[in-house]
Amino acid sequence: MKTFECACIIGVGLLGGSLAKAMRQRRLAKTLVGHGRNRSNLEEAKKLDIIDSFEVDIQSAVKEADLIVLCTPVQAIVPLVRKMAPSLKAGCLVTDVGSVKAQLVREVEPLIPEHAFFVGAHPIAGGEKSGLCVSSKTLFEGTRCIVTPTERTDPDALKQTIDLWEQVGTHVSCMDVEEHDYIFGAVSHLPHVVIYALMNMLGSLKSKNHDEIISFSGAGLKDITRIAGGDPVMWRDICLSNRDSVLHYIDRFQETLNHIRGGIDRGEGEFLVREFETANKHRFHLIENA
Amino acid sequence: MKTFECACIIGVGLLGGSLAKAMRQRRLAKTLVGHGRNRSNLEEAKKLDIIDSFEVDIQSAVKEADLIVLCTPVQAIVPLVRKMAPSLKAGCLVTDVGSVKAQLVREVEPLIPEHAFFVGAHPIAGGEKSGLCVSSKTLFEGTRCIVTPTERTDPDALKQTIDLWEQVGTHVSCMDVEEHDYIFGAVSHLPHVVIYALMNMLGSLKSKNHDEIISFSGAGLKDITRIAGGDPVMWRDICLSNRDSVLHYIDRFQETLNHIRGGIDRGEGEFLVREFETANKHRFHLIENA
Repeated sequence: MKTFECACIIGVGLLGGSLAKAMRQRRLAKTLVGHGRNRSNLEEAKKLDIIDSFEVDIQSAVKEADLIVLCTPVQAIVPLVRKMAPSLKAGCLVTDVGSVKAQLVREVEPLIPEHAFFVGAHPIAGGEKSGLCVSSKTLFEGTRCIVTPTERTDPDALKQTIDLWEQVGTHVSCMDVEEHDYIFGAVSHLPHVVIYALMNMLGSLKSKNHDEIISFSGAGLKDITRIAGGDPVMWRDICLSNRDSVLHYIDRFQETLNHIRGGIDRGEGEFLVREFETANKHRFHLIENA
Repeated sequence: MKTFECACIIGVGLLGGSLAKAMRQRRLAKTLVGHGRNRSNLEEAKKLDIIDSFEVDIQSAVKEADLIVLCTPVQAIVPLVRKMAPSLKAGCLVTDVGSVKAQLVREVEPLIPEHAFFVGAHPIAGGEKSGLCVSSKTLFEGTRCIVTPTERTDPDALKQTIDLWEQVGTHVSCMDVEEHDYIFGAVSHLPHVVIYALMNMLGSLKSKNHDEIISFSGAGLKDITRIAGGDPVMWRDICLSNRDSVLHYIDRFQETLNHIRGGIDRGEGEFLVREFETANKHRFHLIENA
Protein backbone atom coordinates (compact mmCIF):
# COMPACT_ATOMS: atom_id res chain seq x y z
CA MET A 1 0.00 0.00 0.00
CA LYS A 2 1.29 3.38 -1.07
CA THR A 3 1.49 6.23 1.43
CA PHE A 4 0.48 9.42 -0.32
CA GLU A 5 2.72 12.45 0.16
CA CYS A 6 -0.14 14.89 0.02
CA ALA A 7 -3.82 14.00 -0.20
CA CYS A 8 -6.31 16.72 -1.05
CA ILE A 9 -9.93 16.29 0.07
CA ILE A 10 -12.33 18.44 -1.93
CA GLY A 11 -15.48 18.95 0.15
CA VAL A 12 -14.84 18.24 3.84
CA GLY A 13 -18.34 17.10 4.82
CA LEU A 14 -19.69 13.73 5.94
CA LEU A 15 -17.83 11.66 3.34
CA GLY A 16 -14.76 13.87 2.89
CA GLY A 17 -14.38 14.42 6.63
CA SER A 18 -14.79 10.71 7.36
CA LEU A 19 -12.26 9.79 4.68
CA ALA A 20 -9.74 12.30 6.06
CA LYS A 21 -10.22 10.92 9.57
CA ALA A 22 -9.87 7.31 8.38
CA MET A 23 -6.75 8.14 6.32
CA ARG A 24 -5.27 10.06 9.23
CA GLN A 25 -5.79 7.17 11.64
CA ARG A 26 -4.16 4.71 9.23
CA ARG A 27 -1.39 7.13 8.16
CA LEU A 28 -2.31 6.77 4.49
CA ALA A 29 -1.12 10.30 3.68
CA LYS A 30 1.74 12.38 5.09
CA THR A 31 -0.21 15.59 4.61
CA LEU A 32 -3.96 16.19 4.28
CA VAL A 33 -5.13 19.37 2.57
CA GLY A 34 -8.77 20.41 2.53
CA HIS A 35 -10.67 22.49 0.00
CA GLY A 36 -14.29 23.62 0.02
CA ARG A 37 -16.61 26.55 -0.49
CA ASN A 38 -17.20 27.15 3.20
CA ARG A 39 -14.17 28.69 4.89
CA SER A 40 -15.44 28.30 8.45
CA ASN A 41 -16.04 24.60 7.83
CA LEU A 42 -12.42 24.24 6.65
CA GLU A 43 -11.22 26.19 9.70
CA GLU A 44 -13.21 23.83 11.91
CA ALA A 45 -11.67 20.80 10.17
CA LYS A 46 -8.17 22.19 10.69
CA LYS A 47 -8.89 23.04 14.32
CA LEU A 48 -10.05 19.46 14.89
CA ASP A 49 -6.84 18.23 13.20
CA ILE A 50 -8.85 16.39 10.53
CA ILE A 51 -6.76 18.18 7.90
CA ASP A 52 -3.31 19.75 8.19
CA SER A 53 -4.19 22.81 6.15
CA PHE A 54 -6.75 24.16 3.73
CA GLU A 55 -6.84 26.22 0.58
CA VAL A 56 -9.88 28.12 -0.65
CA ASP A 57 -8.33 28.41 -4.10
CA ILE A 58 -8.76 25.10 -5.92
CA GLN A 59 -5.51 25.34 -7.91
CA SER A 60 -3.47 26.02 -4.78
CA ALA A 61 -5.29 23.17 -3.03
CA VAL A 62 -4.33 20.55 -5.59
CA LYS A 63 -0.90 21.64 -6.77
CA GLU A 64 1.14 19.51 -4.33
CA ALA A 65 -1.29 16.60 -4.20
CA ASP A 66 -0.54 13.07 -5.39
CA LEU A 67 -4.09 12.07 -4.38
CA ILE A 68 -7.22 14.15 -4.87
CA VAL A 69 -10.60 12.88 -3.68
CA LEU A 70 -13.68 14.79 -4.81
CA CYS A 71 -16.32 14.55 -2.07
CA THR A 72 -18.78 17.19 -3.29
CA PRO A 73 -22.29 16.80 -4.72
CA VAL A 74 -22.13 15.05 -8.10
CA GLN A 75 -22.84 18.07 -10.29
CA ALA A 76 -20.01 20.10 -8.73
CA ILE A 77 -17.39 17.54 -9.76
CA VAL A 78 -16.96 18.31 -13.48
CA PRO A 79 -16.54 22.10 -13.02
CA LEU A 80 -14.02 21.46 -10.23
CA VAL A 81 -12.00 19.02 -12.34
CA ARG A 82 -11.99 21.53 -15.19
CA LYS A 83 -10.57 24.18 -12.86
CA MET A 84 -7.98 21.98 -11.20
CA ALA A 85 -6.76 20.20 -14.37
CA PRO A 86 -3.99 22.71 -15.30
CA SER A 87 -2.51 22.45 -11.79
CA LEU A 88 -2.40 18.66 -11.44
CA LYS A 89 1.01 17.27 -10.54
CA ALA A 90 2.57 14.50 -12.64
CA GLY A 91 1.40 11.08 -11.43
CA CYS A 92 -1.49 12.50 -9.42
CA LEU A 93 -4.47 10.19 -8.84
CA VAL A 94 -7.87 11.87 -8.93
CA THR A 95 -10.88 9.96 -7.61
CA ASP A 96 -14.32 10.77 -6.23
CA VAL A 97 -17.19 9.46 -4.10
CA GLY A 98 -20.08 10.34 -6.44
CA SER A 99 -23.26 8.24 -6.32
CA VAL A 100 -23.74 8.39 -10.10
CA LYS A 101 -20.96 7.36 -12.43
CA ALA A 102 -21.67 7.08 -16.18
CA GLN A 103 -22.13 10.72 -17.16
CA LEU A 104 -19.57 11.87 -14.60
CA VAL A 105 -16.78 9.53 -15.66
CA ARG A 106 -17.51 10.23 -19.33
CA GLU A 107 -17.10 13.97 -18.72
CA VAL A 108 -14.17 13.84 -16.30
CA GLU A 109 -11.86 11.48 -18.20
CA PRO A 110 -11.14 13.84 -21.12
CA LEU A 111 -10.40 16.70 -18.69
CA ILE A 112 -7.57 14.87 -16.93
CA PRO A 113 -4.13 15.66 -18.43
CA GLU A 114 -1.94 12.85 -19.81
CA HIS A 115 0.39 12.92 -16.80
CA ALA A 116 -2.42 12.34 -14.24
CA PHE A 117 -5.04 9.64 -13.66
CA PHE A 118 -8.72 9.40 -12.85
CA VAL A 119 -10.62 6.43 -11.39
CA GLY A 120 -14.25 6.76 -10.29
CA ALA A 121 -15.39 5.35 -6.95
CA HIS A 122 -18.61 5.20 -4.95
CA PRO A 123 -18.46 4.16 -1.30
CA ILE A 124 -21.93 3.02 -0.15
CA ALA A 125 -21.89 4.97 3.08
CA GLY A 126 -23.53 8.01 4.58
CA GLY A 127 -27.05 8.72 5.62
CA GLU A 128 -29.65 11.44 5.66
CA LYS A 129 -27.45 13.59 7.85
CA SER A 130 -24.65 15.50 6.23
CA GLY A 131 -21.74 17.69 7.22
CA LEU A 132 -18.40 17.48 8.96
CA CYS A 133 -20.10 17.30 12.37
CA VAL A 134 -21.45 13.80 11.65
CA SER A 135 -18.25 12.50 10.00
CA SER A 136 -16.53 9.51 11.57
CA LYS A 137 -13.29 7.63 11.05
CA THR A 138 -15.32 4.39 11.13
CA LEU A 139 -17.95 5.46 8.58
CA PHE A 140 -16.61 3.20 5.84
CA GLU A 141 -15.78 0.14 7.91
CA GLY A 142 -17.65 -2.92 6.69
CA THR A 143 -19.41 -1.04 3.89
CA ARG A 144 -19.11 -1.67 0.16
CA CYS A 145 -17.30 0.53 -2.32
CA ILE A 146 -17.82 0.34 -6.07
CA VAL A 147 -14.85 1.28 -8.24
CA THR A 148 -15.66 1.93 -11.90
CA PRO A 149 -12.71 1.50 -14.27
CA THR A 150 -13.11 2.13 -17.99
CA GLU A 151 -11.04 1.01 -20.99
CA ARG A 152 -8.96 4.19 -20.43
CA THR A 153 -8.14 3.45 -16.79
CA ASP A 154 -4.47 3.02 -15.88
CA PRO A 155 -4.00 -0.35 -14.10
CA ASP A 156 -1.72 1.08 -11.44
CA ALA A 157 -4.10 3.98 -10.72
CA LEU A 158 -6.92 1.42 -10.44
CA LYS A 159 -4.90 -0.61 -7.96
CA GLN A 160 -4.12 2.50 -5.88
CA THR A 161 -7.81 3.40 -5.80
CA ILE A 162 -8.84 -0.09 -4.71
CA ASP A 163 -6.10 -0.14 -2.07
CA LEU A 164 -7.20 3.21 -0.68
CA TRP A 165 -10.80 2.09 -0.21
CA GLU A 166 -9.80 -1.28 1.18
CA GLN A 167 -7.47 0.41 3.66
CA VAL A 168 -10.31 2.48 5.10
CA GLY A 169 -12.36 -0.66 5.60
CA THR A 170 -14.64 -1.08 2.59
CA HIS A 171 -15.22 -4.20 0.49
CA VAL A 172 -14.41 -3.13 -3.04
CA SER A 173 -16.24 -4.37 -6.16
CA CYS A 174 -15.39 -3.23 -9.67
CA MET A 175 -18.06 -2.72 -12.30
CA ASP A 176 -18.56 -0.63 -15.39
CA VAL A 177 -20.19 2.77 -15.03
CA GLU A 178 -23.41 1.79 -16.83
CA GLU A 179 -24.02 -1.22 -14.64
CA HIS A 180 -23.24 0.87 -11.56
CA ASP A 181 -25.87 3.44 -12.48
CA TYR A 182 -28.40 0.75 -13.38
CA ILE A 183 -27.94 -0.96 -10.00
CA PHE A 184 -27.88 2.18 -7.85
CA GLY A 185 -30.76 3.71 -9.77
CA ALA A 186 -32.74 0.77 -8.41
CA VAL A 187 -31.47 0.20 -4.89
CA SER A 188 -30.84 3.81 -3.93
CA HIS A 189 -32.08 6.52 -6.30
CA LEU A 190 -35.60 5.19 -6.92
CA PRO A 191 -36.28 4.55 -3.20
CA HIS A 192 -35.29 8.13 -2.39
CA VAL A 193 -37.62 9.56 -5.03
CA VAL A 194 -40.46 7.29 -3.85
CA ILE A 195 -40.01 8.35 -0.24
CA TYR A 196 -39.70 12.04 -1.10
CA ALA A 197 -43.01 11.72 -2.99
CA LEU A 198 -44.68 9.82 -0.15
CA MET A 199 -43.49 12.35 2.43
CA ASN A 200 -44.77 15.27 0.34
CA MET A 201 -48.13 13.68 -0.30
CA LEU A 202 -48.65 12.85 3.38
CA GLY A 203 -47.10 15.99 4.83
CA SER A 204 -49.76 18.33 3.60
CA LEU A 205 -52.76 16.09 4.28
CA LYS A 206 -55.50 17.23 6.65
CA SER A 207 -58.60 15.46 7.94
CA LYS A 208 -61.96 16.78 9.15
CA ASN A 209 -60.71 17.47 12.67
CA HIS A 210 -56.95 17.23 12.37
CA ASP A 211 -54.69 19.63 10.52
CA GLU A 212 -51.66 17.38 10.64
CA ILE A 213 -52.56 13.81 10.20
CA ILE A 214 -48.92 12.71 10.17
CA SER A 215 -48.93 13.25 13.92
CA PHE A 216 -50.78 9.90 14.07
CA SER A 217 -47.85 8.04 12.49
CA GLY A 218 -46.47 4.92 14.09
CA ALA A 219 -42.87 3.74 14.05
CA GLY A 220 -43.25 2.40 10.50
CA LEU A 221 -43.67 5.79 8.86
CA LYS A 222 -40.82 7.25 10.88
CA ASP A 223 -38.52 4.48 9.68
CA ILE A 224 -39.43 4.69 6.04
CA THR A 225 -39.25 8.46 5.83
CA ARG A 226 -35.76 8.76 7.31
CA ILE A 227 -34.31 9.13 3.82
CA ALA A 228 -36.76 11.98 3.13
CA GLY A 229 -34.26 13.98 5.22
CA GLY A 230 -31.59 13.57 2.50
CA ASP A 231 -29.83 16.67 1.18
CA PRO A 232 -31.93 18.28 -1.61
CA VAL A 233 -28.97 19.45 -3.73
CA MET A 234 -27.23 16.09 -3.55
CA TRP A 235 -30.42 14.29 -4.57
CA ARG A 236 -31.25 16.74 -7.32
CA ASP A 237 -27.79 16.05 -8.74
CA ILE A 238 -28.26 12.30 -8.47
CA CYS A 239 -31.71 12.37 -10.12
CA LEU A 240 -30.50 14.52 -12.99
CA SER A 241 -27.19 12.69 -13.48
CA ASN A 242 -28.88 9.30 -13.56
CA ARG A 243 -32.05 10.53 -15.20
CA ASP A 244 -32.67 7.69 -17.64
CA SER A 245 -32.35 4.95 -15.02
CA VAL A 246 -34.41 6.86 -12.47
CA LEU A 247 -37.24 7.48 -14.96
CA HIS A 248 -37.12 3.85 -16.05
CA TYR A 249 -37.42 2.63 -12.47
CA ILE A 250 -40.17 5.09 -11.54
CA ASP A 251 -42.18 3.64 -14.42
CA ARG A 252 -41.51 0.05 -13.37
CA PHE A 253 -42.35 0.84 -9.77
CA GLN A 254 -45.61 2.50 -10.78
CA GLU A 255 -46.53 -0.59 -12.78
CA THR A 256 -45.92 -2.82 -9.76
CA LEU A 257 -47.92 -0.50 -7.54
CA ASN A 258 -50.77 -0.46 -10.06
CA HIS A 259 -50.68 -4.24 -10.16
CA ILE A 260 -51.26 -4.37 -6.39
CA ARG A 261 -53.81 -1.55 -6.69
CA GLY A 262 -55.77 -3.72 -9.12
CA GLY A 263 -55.84 -6.59 -6.61
CA ILE A 264 -57.17 -4.28 -3.90
CA ASP A 265 -59.71 -2.74 -6.26
CA ARG A 266 -61.05 -6.15 -7.31
CA GLY A 267 -60.95 -7.53 -3.76
CA GLU A 268 -58.52 -10.32 -4.69
CA GLY A 269 -57.44 -11.47 -1.24
CA GLU A 270 -55.39 -14.46 -2.33
CA PHE A 271 -53.50 -12.40 -4.87
CA LEU A 272 -52.67 -9.80 -2.21
CA VAL A 273 -51.44 -12.44 0.23
CA ARG A 274 -49.14 -13.83 -2.49
CA GLU A 275 -47.80 -10.37 -3.34
CA PHE A 276 -47.13 -9.55 0.32
CA GLU A 277 -45.55 -12.96 0.93
CA THR A 278 -43.22 -12.29 -1.99
CA ALA A 279 -42.27 -8.96 -0.41
CA ASN A 280 -41.64 -10.75 2.92
CA LYS A 281 -39.31 -13.14 1.11
CA HIS A 282 -37.38 -10.37 -0.67
CA ARG A 283 -37.11 -8.42 2.57
CA PHE A 284 -35.76 -11.47 4.40
CA HIS A 285 -33.28 -11.99 1.61
CA LEU A 286 -32.21 -8.35 1.75
CA ILE A 287 -31.36 -8.38 5.44
CA GLU A 288 -29.68 -11.78 5.19
CA ASN A 289 -27.49 -10.90 2.23
CA ALA A 290 -26.92 -7.18 2.04
CA MET B 1 -60.74 2.14 37.22
CA LYS B 2 -62.72 -1.07 37.10
CA THR B 3 -61.00 -4.39 37.73
CA PHE B 4 -62.49 -6.94 35.37
CA GLU B 5 -63.52 -10.28 36.85
CA CYS B 6 -62.61 -12.21 33.75
CA ALA B 7 -60.94 -10.81 30.64
CA CYS B 8 -60.87 -12.90 27.50
CA ILE B 9 -58.12 -12.24 24.93
CA ILE B 10 -59.01 -13.55 21.48
CA GLY B 11 -55.78 -14.07 19.54
CA VAL B 12 -52.78 -14.27 21.88
CA GLY B 13 -50.11 -12.93 19.51
CA LEU B 14 -48.06 -9.72 19.58
CA LEU B 15 -50.93 -7.40 20.53
CA GLY B 16 -53.06 -9.88 22.50
CA GLY B 17 -50.06 -11.28 24.36
CA SER B 18 -48.73 -7.79 25.12
CA LEU B 19 -52.14 -6.66 26.36
CA ALA B 20 -52.46 -9.73 28.60
CA LYS B 21 -48.99 -9.11 30.04
CA ALA B 22 -49.71 -5.40 30.62
CA MET B 23 -53.09 -6.17 32.25
CA ARG B 24 -51.51 -8.87 34.41
CA GLN B 25 -48.79 -6.54 35.64
CA ARG B 26 -51.33 -3.86 36.55
CA ARG B 27 -53.88 -6.35 37.94
CA LEU B 28 -56.60 -5.06 35.64
CA ALA B 29 -58.36 -8.45 35.55
CA LYS B 30 -58.75 -11.15 38.18
CA THR B 31 -58.66 -13.89 35.55
CA LEU B 32 -57.27 -13.89 32.01
CA VAL B 33 -58.63 -16.43 29.52
CA GLY B 34 -57.07 -16.93 26.10
CA HIS B 35 -58.65 -18.11 22.87
CA GLY B 36 -57.08 -18.71 19.47
CA ARG B 37 -56.80 -21.13 16.58
CA ASN B 38 -53.39 -22.43 17.53
CA ARG B 39 -53.57 -24.71 20.58
CA SER B 40 -49.82 -24.93 21.11
CA ASN B 41 -49.59 -21.13 21.15
CA LEU B 42 -52.27 -21.03 23.88
CA GLU B 43 -50.44 -23.76 25.83
CA GLU B 44 -47.26 -21.69 25.60
CA ALA B 45 -49.10 -18.57 26.83
CA LYS B 46 -50.49 -20.53 29.80
CA LYS B 47 -47.09 -22.05 30.56
CA LEU B 48 -45.58 -18.56 30.62
CA ASP B 49 -48.41 -17.43 32.94
CA ILE B 50 -49.54 -14.78 30.44
CA ILE B 51 -53.06 -16.22 30.70
CA ASP B 52 -54.64 -18.29 33.48
CA SER B 53 -56.41 -20.68 31.15
CA PHE B 54 -57.48 -21.08 27.55
CA GLU B 55 -60.46 -22.38 25.62
CA VAL B 56 -60.34 -23.52 22.01
CA ASP B 57 -64.12 -23.25 21.79
CA ILE B 58 -65.07 -19.59 21.36
CA GLN B 59 -68.36 -19.83 23.26
CA SER B 60 -66.68 -21.46 26.26
CA ALA B 61 -63.91 -18.85 26.07
CA VAL B 62 -66.26 -15.87 26.38
CA LYS B 63 -69.06 -17.13 28.61
CA GLU B 64 -67.61 -15.88 31.92
CA ALA B 65 -65.95 -12.77 30.52
CA ASP B 66 -66.89 -9.20 31.42
CA LEU B 67 -64.20 -7.98 29.01
CA ILE B 68 -63.42 -9.46 25.60
CA VAL B 69 -60.61 -8.02 23.47
CA LEU B 70 -60.41 -9.20 19.87
CA CYS B 71 -56.74 -9.22 18.82
CA THR B 72 -56.99 -11.16 15.55
CA PRO B 73 -56.52 -9.99 11.95
CA VAL B 74 -59.33 -7.58 11.02
CA GLN B 75 -61.31 -9.90 8.76
CA ALA B 76 -61.54 -12.62 11.46
CA ILE B 77 -63.34 -10.28 13.86
CA VAL B 78 -66.89 -10.25 12.44
CA PRO B 79 -67.18 -14.07 12.16
CA LEU B 80 -65.86 -14.42 15.71
CA VAL B 81 -68.32 -11.87 17.09
CA ARG B 82 -71.15 -13.66 15.29
CA LYS B 83 -70.13 -16.93 16.97
CA MET B 84 -69.62 -15.52 20.44
CA ALA B 85 -72.72 -13.28 20.50
CA PRO B 86 -75.19 -15.87 21.95
CA SER B 87 -72.79 -16.60 24.83
CA LEU B 88 -72.03 -13.04 25.94
CA LYS B 89 -72.69 -12.35 29.60
CA ALA B 90 -74.86 -9.42 30.68
CA GLY B 91 -72.81 -6.23 30.94
CA CYS B 92 -69.89 -7.66 28.97
CA LEU B 93 -67.67 -5.13 27.15
CA VAL B 94 -66.36 -6.26 23.77
CA THR B 95 -63.52 -4.30 22.17
CA ASP B 96 -60.81 -4.93 19.58
CA VAL B 97 -57.43 -3.73 18.31
CA GLY B 98 -58.22 -3.67 14.58
CA SER B 99 -56.35 -1.23 12.33
CA VAL B 100 -59.43 -0.47 10.22
CA LYS B 101 -62.64 0.66 11.86
CA ALA B 102 -65.53 1.85 9.68
CA GLN B 103 -66.64 -1.39 8.03
CA LEU B 104 -65.78 -3.43 11.12
CA VAL B 105 -67.72 -1.31 13.61
CA ARG B 106 -70.66 -1.07 11.20
CA GLU B 107 -70.81 -4.88 10.99
CA VAL B 108 -70.06 -5.69 14.63
CA GLU B 109 -72.50 -3.33 16.35
CA PRO B 110 -75.71 -5.03 15.17
CA LEU B 111 -74.32 -8.45 16.23
CA ILE B 112 -73.87 -7.45 19.88
CA PRO B 113 -76.90 -8.35 22.04
CA GLU B 114 -78.77 -5.64 23.98
CA HIS B 115 -77.24 -6.68 27.30
CA ALA B 116 -73.61 -6.32 26.10
CA PHE B 117 -71.51 -3.46 24.69
CA PHE B 118 -69.04 -2.89 21.88
CA VAL B 119 -66.48 -0.10 21.53
CA GLY B 120 -63.85 -0.16 18.77
CA ALA B 121 -60.21 0.62 19.54
CA HIS B 122 -56.93 0.77 17.66
CA PRO B 123 -53.68 0.94 19.61
CA ILE B 124 -50.89 2.26 17.34
CA ALA B 125 -48.36 -0.34 18.36
CA GLY B 126 -46.67 -3.37 16.91
CA GLY B 127 -44.20 -3.83 14.14
CA GLU B 128 -43.31 -6.10 11.30
CA LYS B 129 -42.71 -8.98 13.69
CA SER B 130 -45.71 -10.85 14.97
CA GLY B 131 -46.51 -13.57 17.47
CA LEU B 132 -46.53 -14.19 21.20
CA CYS B 133 -42.74 -14.54 21.23
CA VAL B 134 -42.26 -10.82 20.53
CA SER B 135 -45.04 -9.64 22.88
CA SER B 136 -44.08 -7.33 25.74
CA LYS B 137 -45.81 -5.83 28.75
CA THR B 138 -44.37 -2.45 27.74
CA LEU B 139 -45.48 -2.55 24.08
CA PHE B 140 -48.22 0.04 24.55
CA GLU B 141 -46.40 2.43 26.87
CA GLY B 142 -46.16 5.92 25.39
CA THR B 143 -48.02 4.95 22.20
CA ARG B 144 -51.32 6.34 20.96
CA CYS B 145 -54.63 4.52 20.97
CA ILE B 146 -57.64 5.59 18.93
CA VAL B 147 -61.06 4.77 20.37
CA THR B 148 -63.95 5.05 17.91
CA PRO B 149 -67.35 5.59 19.55
CA THR B 150 -70.50 5.86 17.42
CA GLU B 151 -73.94 7.31 18.18
CA ARG B 152 -74.86 3.84 19.53
CA THR B 153 -71.96 3.64 21.99
CA ASP B 154 -72.84 3.34 25.68
CA PRO B 155 -71.07 6.15 27.63
CA ASP B 156 -70.00 3.85 30.45
CA ALA B 157 -68.64 1.24 28.03
CA LEU B 158 -66.73 4.03 26.29
CA LYS B 159 -65.26 5.17 29.59
CA GLN B 160 -64.21 1.61 30.47
CA THR B 161 -62.52 1.22 27.08
CA ILE B 162 -60.63 4.49 27.43
CA ASP B 163 -59.62 3.59 31.00
CA LEU B 164 -58.32 0.19 29.89
CA TRP B 165 -56.06 1.66 27.21
CA GLU B 166 -54.88 4.48 29.45
CA GLN B 167 -54.05 1.98 32.20
CA VAL B 168 -51.73 0.04 29.89
CA GLY B 169 -49.91 3.25 29.02
CA THR B 170 -51.40 4.64 25.81
CA HIS B 171 -52.54 8.19 25.08
CA VAL B 172 -56.16 7.81 24.00
CA SER B 173 -57.83 9.96 21.31
CA CYS B 174 -61.46 9.51 20.27
CA MET B 175 -62.55 9.96 16.68
CA ASP B 176 -65.29 8.70 14.43
CA VAL B 177 -64.66 5.55 12.41
CA GLU B 178 -64.59 7.33 9.04
CA GLU B 179 -62.00 9.85 10.13
CA HIS B 180 -59.95 7.04 11.69
CA ASP B 181 -59.84 5.12 8.41
CA TYR B 182 -59.08 8.24 6.42
CA ILE B 183 -56.13 9.10 8.67
CA PHE B 184 -54.70 5.59 8.96
CA GLY B 185 -55.23 4.91 5.29
CA ALA B 186 -52.72 7.73 4.80
CA VAL B 187 -50.16 7.34 7.58
CA SER B 188 -50.10 3.55 7.74
CA HIS B 189 -51.95 1.63 5.02
CA LEU B 190 -50.65 3.52 1.97
CA PRO B 191 -47.01 3.41 3.14
CA HIS B 192 -47.24 -0.36 3.58
CA VAL B 193 -48.64 -0.85 0.07
CA VAL B 194 -45.97 1.46 -1.39
CA ILE B 195 -43.18 -0.42 0.35
CA TYR B 196 -44.57 -3.84 -0.57
CA ALA B 197 -44.62 -2.68 -4.21
CA LEU B 198 -41.10 -1.23 -4.01
CA MET B 199 -39.75 -4.40 -2.41
CA ASN B 200 -41.36 -6.60 -5.06
CA MET B 201 -40.12 -4.48 -7.92
CA LEU B 202 -36.55 -4.41 -6.60
CA GLY B 203 -36.45 -7.96 -5.29
CA SER B 204 -36.59 -9.61 -8.68
CA LEU B 205 -34.29 -7.19 -10.49
CA LYS B 206 -31.09 -8.44 -12.13
CA SER B 207 -28.27 -6.60 -13.87
CA LYS B 208 -25.82 -7.72 -16.56
CA ASN B 209 -23.42 -9.33 -14.10
CA HIS B 210 -25.43 -9.52 -10.88
CA ASP B 211 -28.43 -11.72 -10.25
CA GLU B 212 -29.44 -10.00 -7.07
CA ILE B 213 -28.91 -6.32 -7.25
CA ILE B 214 -30.52 -5.74 -3.85
CA SER B 215 -27.30 -7.09 -2.33
CA PHE B 216 -25.85 -3.63 -3.15
CA SER B 217 -28.35 -1.88 -0.88
CA GLY B 218 -27.18 0.59 1.72
CA ALA B 219 -28.76 1.28 5.10
CA GLY B 220 -31.52 3.40 3.51
CA LEU B 221 -33.18 0.54 1.69
CA LYS B 222 -32.95 -1.70 4.73
CA ASP B 223 -34.71 0.93 6.83
CA ILE B 224 -37.48 1.68 4.41
CA THR B 225 -38.27 -1.95 3.64
CA ARG B 226 -38.65 -3.03 7.27
CA ILE B 227 -42.43 -2.82 6.93
CA ALA B 228 -42.27 -5.10 3.87
CA GLY B 229 -41.87 -7.82 6.50
CA GLY B 230 -45.43 -7.20 7.74
CA ASP B 231 -47.84 -10.14 8.02
CA PRO B 232 -49.50 -10.78 4.61
CA VAL B 233 -52.88 -11.86 6.00
CA MET B 234 -53.11 -8.90 8.34
CA TRP B 235 -52.24 -6.49 5.52
CA ARG B 236 -54.59 -8.15 3.04
CA ASP B 237 -57.37 -7.63 5.58
CA ILE B 238 -56.41 -4.01 6.13
CA CYS B 239 -56.23 -3.24 2.39
CA LEU B 240 -59.61 -4.85 1.72
CA SER B 241 -61.34 -3.43 4.81
CA ASN B 242 -60.17 0.10 4.04
CA ARG B 243 -60.28 -0.31 0.27
CA ASP B 244 -61.73 3.06 -0.71
CA SER B 245 -59.24 5.09 1.32
CA VAL B 246 -56.29 2.95 0.21
CA LEU B 247 -57.21 3.29 -3.47
CA HIS B 248 -57.74 7.01 -3.05
CA TYR B 249 -54.31 7.44 -1.48
CA ILE B 250 -52.54 5.23 -4.02
CA ASP B 251 -53.91 7.54 -6.72
CA ARG B 252 -52.86 10.68 -4.89
CA PHE B 253 -49.42 9.24 -4.25
CA GLN B 254 -49.04 8.31 -7.93
CA GLU B 255 -49.92 11.90 -8.84
CA THR B 256 -47.24 13.28 -6.49
CA LEU B 257 -44.69 10.83 -7.83
CA ASN B 258 -45.60 11.77 -11.41
CA HIS B 259 -45.15 15.42 -10.50
CA ILE B 260 -41.58 14.73 -9.35
CA ARG B 261 -41.03 12.41 -12.32
CA GLY B 262 -41.92 15.30 -14.62
CA GLY B 263 -39.32 17.53 -12.96
CA ILE B 264 -36.63 14.87 -13.44
CA ASP B 265 -37.70 14.25 -17.03
CA ARG B 266 -37.54 17.95 -17.92
CA GLY B 267 -34.30 18.48 -15.97
CA GLU B 268 -35.87 21.07 -13.64
CA GLY B 269 -33.20 21.26 -10.96
CA GLU B 270 -34.71 24.13 -8.98
CA PHE B 271 -38.10 22.46 -8.90
CA LEU B 272 -36.52 19.25 -7.58
CA VAL B 273 -34.61 21.09 -4.85
CA ARG B 274 -37.87 22.74 -3.74
CA GLU B 275 -39.71 19.40 -3.69
CA PHE B 276 -36.96 17.71 -1.70
CA GLU B 277 -36.70 20.64 0.71
CA THR B 278 -40.44 20.35 1.32
CA ALA B 279 -39.94 16.65 2.10
CA ASN B 280 -37.10 17.55 4.50
CA LYS B 281 -39.46 19.95 6.27
CA HIS B 282 -42.29 17.41 6.56
CA ARG B 283 -39.85 14.79 7.79
CA PHE B 284 -38.48 17.14 10.43
CA HIS B 285 -42.02 17.93 11.49
CA LEU B 286 -42.88 14.23 11.67
CA ILE B 287 -40.07 13.34 14.05
CA GLU B 288 -40.62 16.47 16.14
CA ASN B 289 -44.36 15.99 16.57
CA ALA B 290 -45.30 12.37 16.18
